[in-house]
Amino acid sequence: MQNNKTVHALQWTGSALKVLDQRLLPEKIIYDEYQDAIGVTEAITTMRVRGAPAIGIAAAYGVALSVQKYYAQSSHWREKVDADIELLAKSRPTAVNLFWALDQMKAMLAMPLDNPPAAILAGAEKIHNDDITANYKMGELGADILSGAKSVMTHCNAGALATGGYGTALGVIRSVYKRQAIKVYAGETRPWLQGARLTVWELAQDGIPSTLIADSAAAWLMKFGALDWIVVGADRIAANGDVANKIGTYALAVLARQHGVKLMVVAPTTTIDWAIDSGNQIELEQRSPNELLPACYNHKDSLVSAWNPVFDVTPAKLISAIVTERGVILNPAEQDIRSLKNAI
Amino acid sequence: MQNNKTVHALQWTGSALKVLDQRLLPEKIIYDEYQDAIGVTEAITTMRVRGAPAIGIAAAYGVALSVQKYYAQSSHWREKVDADIELLAKSRPTAVNLFWALDQMKAMLAMPLDNPPAAILAGAEKIHNDDITANYKMGELGADILSGAKSVMTHCNAGALATGGYGTALGVIRSVYKRQAIKVYAGETRPWLQGARLTVWELAQDGIPSTLIADSAAAWLMKFGALDWIVVGADRIAANGDVANKIGTYALAVLARQHGVKLMVVAPTTTIDWAIDSGNQIELEQRSPNELLPACYNHKDSLVSAWNPVFDVTPAKLISAIVTERGVILNPAEQDIRSLKNAI
Repeated sequence: MQNNKTVHALQWTGSALKVLDQRLLPEKIIYDEYQDAIGVTEAITTMRVRGAPAIGIAAAYGVALSVQKYYAQSSHWREKVDADIELLAKSRPTAVNLFWALDQMKAMLAMPLDNPPAAILAGAEKIHNDDITANYKMGELGADILSGAKSVMTHCNAGALATGGYGTALGVIRSVYKRQAIKVYAGETRPWLQGARLTVWELAQDGIPSTLIADSAAAWLMKFGALDWIVVGADRIAANGDVANKIGTYALAVLARQHGVKLMVVAPTTTIDWAIDSGNQIELEQRSPNELLPACYNHKDSLVSAWNPVFDVTPAKLISAIVTERGVILNPAEQDIRSLKNAI
Repeated sequence: MQNNKTVHALQWTGSALKVLDQRLLPEKIIYDEYQDAIGVTEAITTMRVRGAPAIGIAAAYGVALSVQKYYAQSSHWREKVDADIELLAKSRPTAVNLFWALDQMKAMLAMPLDNPPAAILAGAEKIHNDDITANYKMGELGADILSGAKSVMTHCNAGALATGGYGTALGVIRSVYKRQAIKVYAGETRPWLQGARLTVWELAQDGIPSTLIADSAAAWLMKFGALDWIVVGADRIAANGDVANKIGTYALAVLARQHGVKLMVVAPTTTIDWAIDSGNQIELEQRSPNELLPACYNHKDSLVSAWNPVFDVTPAKLISAIVTERGVILNPAEQDIRSLKNAI
């Protein structure tokens, strides 16, 4: 099922999880190997692995590693695994796939299991494979909608690196590129530069040409009618269709609407948080000011501070289409996304 | 007249021009000394000195250096000075202050002069001093308008570093800060990071606290009502009030209008290009893709390119006030800025 040409953020070795250190791309391709849940938590917190679906998959493998470690070792293994699950849940706050994956693992652990290490590992692998399958499905559904588009822009990285493989937003771009010529723009995505470091690299690995722009240049591109669609992933989608995604998505959404450019959000249904009614209820991560500040301002008497929100929320009314593996919601402010839940 | 606390981008030594290398800030404060117009051209092209008014002043000193070099040396000194003026005019295309300053110097050279080196140097120094005087005047006029504002954001660097001293947008922020408490945000301004490297540094030098944000976070700040005004400089203003300024200004202008935030443009009348009717006629500089691209994409077979426009144009209708040393134009789409010309 996995696309051979596409890079993998996560690889299960048989007994450990290999995580591509995305902080070092595109200069270096280095995999770190993790044997336990503490290590996987660290890999998520430090953003070696990032992207909502990939975080969920990594956490699932983290639970599998925990069971593998404690099951043979102690009759109290379930308590130790529970503690590891709590640790993993605190790795990052916004991507709901993390909590969804951990809930899946908890539900499995609550069932009678003959061989818990093997069963839980199989569960993690299923989450991983289902995500890839979902990506291919979304790729086709999104490409149908983009049919005839001349140009598309994406923000951050919602590609193979952010998922089990193939990608959500980049999955759609890969699928449409197979069908027709399309010009692909990538916003560089400050402060972590996921667009400049990850997205254009990933596309080039697959032979897809792309053009990088400063985040603040997107409006100027739209002004000239050079963009038809913006296609992004999501970190969490509320039940009303509001979308939490990388900081800057909201700006692009407002600018797109003003310029007649359409906005597509591509995410598996595991990214939908059915428990919340609107985007206002989503916890949005703030990261360290030091990700933005030159080092010389990093002292206690500094007059220079930074505000570093990592995500923002785009209201459903600015979104033209939400694409999931279970189907497409056009104009989510008007068409209830709960129809996807019933499609389960 | 010069503010002692405020840094100086340009210093005349008596026989040479010292240029602060702004590419090295905030880590290093290094002045390069230029003896001739070729050197000054290089300093402008390489962005050691940047900012429309500062470019104009540097070019004026460049002409003074040219006269100083060739007058005693050759009876054909005027031809050599003319060639240097042509060279300086090609250093960067967008800031009209460059062409205005060179026109001033050419007009002076066309007059009968007893001591051309001294007269032309006096002309350059007058341009420099007049710019500082204008900045203080604009500071007061702009601060009047900002009266009672709780927060302001600026983009790029339109400060002492971009002018003869004190600054245009930052001059207004300095002046309002002397009068009242105000929260100051600075956009980091990719790709050159003039906000992160220059603006917050310059404000800290004057004891003014500031908060840095990623360019793409500005909309999210506006969404919460945390911004009252955006205050920026300009590289060229068309006769209809359209404003060419740092890439990203147009995005901020559209976003500001959508969120009820007001936009102020602060620039001396030397930044107004009376010869052009609208912003469509302004030549906008594109710089090398390598300013955006990671080095590994910088080869001829690369599938990754970059689009790196350095300026964009904000239509007059999105601007709430244009502040000049000759007065303020509120709603420039409705009130003709040509009234400033008649005020000469």
